[in-house]
Amino acid sequence: MQKRVLSLLVDNTAGVTSRVSGLFTRRGYNIDSITGGVTADDRFSRITVVCSGDELILEQITNQLAKLEDVRAIKVLEPDNSVCHELMMVKVAVKPDQRQGIISIAEIFHAKVVDVDMESMTLEMTGNHQKLESFIDLLGDYEILELARTGVTGLSRGSDDVTFF
Amino acid sequence: MQKRVLSLLVDNTAGVTSRVSGLFTRRGYNIDSITGGVTADDRFSRITVVCSGDELILEQITNQLAKLEDVRAIKVLEPDNSVCHELMMVKVAVKPDQRQGIISIAEIFHAKVVDVDMESMTLEMTGNHQKLESFIDLLGDYEILELARTGVTGLSRGSDDVTFF
Repeated sequence: MQKRVLSLLVDNTAGVTSRVSGLFTRRGYNIDSITGGVTADDRFSRITVVCSGDELILEQITNQLAKLEDVRAIKVLEPDNSVCHELMMVKVAVKPDQRQGIISIAEIFHAKVVDVDMESMTLEMTGNHQKLESFIDLLGDYEILELARTGVTGLSRGSDDVTFF
Repeated sequence: MQKRVLSLLVDNTAGVTSRVSGLFTRRGYNIDSITGGVTADDRFSRITVVCSGDELILEQITNQLAKLEDVRAIKVLEPDNSVCHELMMVKVAVKPDQRQGIISIAEIFHAKVVDVDMESMTLEMTGNHQKLESFIDLLGDYEILELARTGVTGLSRGSDDVTFF
């Protein structure tokens, strides 16, 4: 099913994220990820929702979102007019003699080594869903000890359709 | 008030994030950010909660979290034994003759240019809260058009205290 990415500019009020996610979950609409945080103007936050499901229901949800008092702007981020990335950290079991192999994989994906000890390395990378999945696949020869990810955030490309903050 | 970072390994079930966040909000406990996503084993997700407030109440919440059926492990990530980062995208109003100035700032912070047009540039960076705030401050001479961030994710350092996946 096609994934949709919604970018919401909202008032930075307590509980706004749960009011937004509640509109999806009450209709049984599947949220893949919801991320958010304060913008450059701390009166506002930007929330990014990745979801998939029936188009008609999504339209109804979007209409309801638009009616929420703390929602200021709603934008649909399309794959070809936006940059949507996620941050992932992966801790891999690595003996000292295996480090160079992991570093080579990390370089291909522009991943950063953020921690290392005698038994493990922790790598950080950003990218779209596909890039993250490819990276995990390529680490298949190693034991992944822990993995954490943020969910997706994104902005539209260019300066035509700016919502500010 | 001191910020606390909790890392939860949970079953990858519908609504687990809202069950977790509900335990905080029902007690009026302030969540700065909550992020999450599936681990290397898609039966499990890892959720990272950044919060601040009374220690005693946090202990009660943690005890209640531990009782949730879909919560498998809870770890407190301390600043000096963990890496906790956030992904931020910033779109800045930039005329062509200002690009070099922005690129210089980006290089200092290891930020990536992910989009550019005649009127704007979009930068992506990762780091801890303080690094992100310093970057925004340094962009103060430019007009920030849009800003999006994911909230924090993190892993403990080293391989002593691994919860797996």
